[in-house]
Amino acid sequence: MPAPSISYSITIRLEVPSGGSAISDLTTTVERAGGIVTALDVAASGADALRIDLTCAASDTEHSARVVDSLRELEDVDVLKVSDRTFLMHLGGVIETATKHPLRNRDDLSMIYTPGVARICQAIVADKEDARRLTVKRNSVAVVSDGSAVLGLGNIGPHAALPVMEGKAALFKSFADIDAWPIVLDTQDVDQIVETVAAISPGFAGINLEDISAPRCFEIEARLRERLDIPVFHDDQHGTAVVVLAALRNSLAVVGKDLAKARIVLVGAGAAGTAVLKVLLHAGAVDVTVCDVQGVVHSGREGMDPSLAWIAANTNDAGRTGTLREALPGADVFIGVSAPNLITAEDVEAMAPDSIVFALANPDPEIDPAVARRHAAVVATGRSDYPNQINNVLAFPGIFRGLLDAQSHGISMDVLIAAADAVADSVSPDELNANYVVPSVFHPDVHQRVASAVRTAAIAADASQHPEQAHHGR
Amino acid sequence: MPAPSISYSITIRLEVPSGGSAISDLTTTVERAGGIVTALDVAASGADALRIDLTCAASDTEHSARVVDSLRELEDVDVLKVSDRTFLMHLGGVIETATKHPLRNRDDLSMIYTPGVARICQAIVADKEDARRLTVKRNSVAVVSDGSAVLGLGNIGPHAALPVMEGKAALFKSFADIDAWPIVLDTQDVDQIVETVAAISPGFAGINLEDISAPRCFEIEARLRERLDIPVFHDDQHGTAVVVLAALRNSLAVVGKDLAKARIVLVGAGAAGTAVLKVLLHAGAVDVTVCDVQGVVHSGREGMDPSLAWIAANTNDAGRTGTLREALPGADVFIGVSAPNLITAEDVEAMAPDSIVFALANPDPEIDPAVARRHAAVVATGRSDYPNQINNVLAFPGIFRGLLDAQSHGISMDVLIAAADAVADSVSPDELNANYVVPSVFHPDVHQRVASAVRTAAIAADASQHPEQAHHGR
Repeated sequence: MPAPSISYSITIRLEVPSGGSAISDLTTTVERAGGIVTALDVAASGADALRIDLTCAASDTEHSARVVDSLRELEDVDVLKVSDRTFLMHLGGVIETATKHPLRNRDDLSMIYTPGVARICQAIVADKEDARRLTVKRNSVAVVSDGSAVLGLGNIGPHAALPVMEGKAALFKSFADIDAWPIVLDTQDVDQIVETVAAISPGFAGINLEDISAPRCFEIEARLRERLDIPVFHDDQHGTAVVVLAALRNSLAVVGKDLAKARIVLVGAGAAGTAVLKVLLHAGAVDVTVCDVQGVVHSGREGMDPSLAWIAANTNDAGRTGTLREALPGADVFIGVSAPNLITAEDVEAMAPDSIVFALANPDPEIDPAVARRHAAVVATGRSDYPNQINNVLAFPGIFRGLLDAQSHGISMDVLIAAADAVADSVSPDELNANYVVPSVFHPDVHQRVASAVRTAAIAADASQHPEQAHHGR
Repeated sequence: MPAPSISYSITIRLEVPSGGSAISDLTTTVERAGGIVTALDVAASGADALRIDLTCAASDTEHSARVVDSLRELEDVDVLKVSDRTFLMHLGGVIETATKHPLRNRDDLSMIYTPGVARICQAIVADKEDARRLTVKRNSVAVVSDGSAVLGLGNIGPHAALPVMEGKAALFKSFADIDAWPIVLDTQDVDQIVETVAAISPGFAGINLEDISAPRCFEIEARLRERLDIPVFHDDQHGTAVVVLAALRNSLAVVGKDLAKARIVLVGAGAAGTAVLKVLLHAGAVDVTVCDVQGVVHSGREGMDPSLAWIAANTNDAGRTGTLREALPGADVFIGVSAPNLITAEDVEAMAPDSIVFALANPDPEIDPAVARRHAAVVATGRSDYPNQINNVLAFPGIFRGLLDAQSHGISMDVLIAAADAVADSVSPDELNANYVVPSVFHPDVHQRVASAVRTAAIAADASQHPEQAHHGR
């Protein structure tokens, strides 16, 4: 059974006798049932009885039911109500809109709405770019998903994907003061997705694609980038790639190796894997071998789609073939964005000394990180309950903050590299060690650092591409 | 020159000598130039000089420039900076997003986002309708426009339309606590608009179409209503119709006439006119004559489009022909949703005794309301500077609040009539008079009354259409 987690946290309202050991009985009972008491509040106190709100973490839904049952069995204790904290938090959604100015009287109305707003419209008619100054467009991002590849849940469709997009919008606001709105699509057709996002784009200064399955996500992103004058970012690809590069830079510093000389084995040729590969190559990696379910990707393989063919042409100069297991011996770096339990302790042992293992499959990594750590010098996962969590939340808020501040019309590889460097540099040299190669998402200024680096890189990129528009970023 | 208005309000920062009559000179100068001083703040005070923020209303942009020039001409006065209050208010937009719960630590993150959010997704996989309980969908409305018919400005496109949609979203929040987001479309093609709105609909519980030109708006609305399981409302049509009916009900009460017997002349067969007509007929009006630029609509006219043909078939039982001017004599009610200065004092004089004139063209009505009032018993306009403003803001916030609370899957004529009755009833019998036939949009409970009436009507309508879904409204 996994450790009790706050994401399976419940609050139980109970009535117990005022005297005696009733309260300590409660906590003892919860702990015996394997739960962890995280809060105990007396909601009402009377001469004979106390009303208690007991909050505790459980391992999963069945476990929390068992905890409640064990409380029900106590004599003199009445279980009045059980609330699931995560569900309570999502009731009615986790985001809302707010007005920036109070609307108290006719004067406010005449400035915010008619007739005053007509003058704002006319200013934008005169200069379309004024929409970035005089409307919410300046600060707003659409979080777009078709619900085809949501978390570990697969193709669950738009309605069920909405809580994730909404949560993401909450993160955008909390970490980067960005006004993001969830847009979930009632279509999984590539053409229709492209047309829809293009059609709604005038109101936004950025598009964050999310949880769209490969290979559709590649084409959707490429076509939207071609067509729109605002940045289009697929977080599952580029967010992951940025944080992997940041973590790899710091991990290599820990073991004293050089990215240009490191032999890297990358497992997973889907959306995330392909994006990680491109960022690594752009950052200076040279010796990369990519594996997918069929083993090593090489130019001799038959029946490759365009994406795999690109990988074959741009990696594996040594011409390796065979299985992942055959590719690993002697490698300096293993990066998995693939499937659970793909490699063993022996595989890690066969890698070069001071090896680095990023086992990023979620929720179950390519190898148990505790096992990997026996032989590898640095281990990172996607999980929050081990050191070195490779978490996209480190990247996307600051990246979009920087792009919006630069009023950027696009997004370049240099911007991603700048973001990765900023994440990496948020770990200071005296903090850096094998268990701390990336900062926490609650690091006090990682998002601000990323934003600042991205803004500078984006202004430079826009200036070189569109010299006449360079002033917009200032 | 029109009266000075807050929507042309400016704040002027000035430096004046500390002693003497400098400050009273400022206000005198502004008033001589025709401006109205609405605020005067001392921003900084020194031994020799005062820094003053002077706020004043002007009639238009040229007038505010003249006011500033007159201040510049004063001796010893330095004009440091002029700010336009309406532009200041729209800088960066008038709405934003907010998170409902603080995101302070890993525990918050694990409930709002991963891994906890996965359980919310799974609940919606199990029951799609749970999206209305566990996400922002429950309370969110898309304010959709293609920018083809914005206020009095015409076809100004999506970017320039954005401030209006944003202002509307601010009104939704302020008056009905609804989370509305502006969606402006980079297309004016009917098929593409329908496809786009349908594609983004899963994240919303209602669609408010806005400022889309006729006759495209009819088809767009009809097709979306057919296709979506959430209410679709075109405010320019139905919002106007609801408030017109409310005002007409109360106006008829003032003059002691009956809707079923009143002879009504309706001018304008566009989006608003057609919607007003349908609501009036549904509410019990019988004798209605519609006029457009070609005069009276009658079944003998040639080359009518389907909308005009419907009007011809359902109005004008008396078989009138000819011009608007020929149709007016003896009429009890004139309703104009058309163009400026269409009728004269003589036309109103020729109407029946105790006539009612709604001159709703904006910003310039079909007849100057002061002129109409000489002969009509009740006069209403769309303007805020005369009594009896027919303002959609009275309708749409409460209508959507009621529809969302009912978890309504559509919107019916009965719902619109219920909304109109609630608006009308917000004026109590002892308040009702010829200068107060509709409440102010700041009336303390008009929006709540509309919401409550609409909720009841929507639940009844949904129950009769989809008996199996009737529980959703409870």
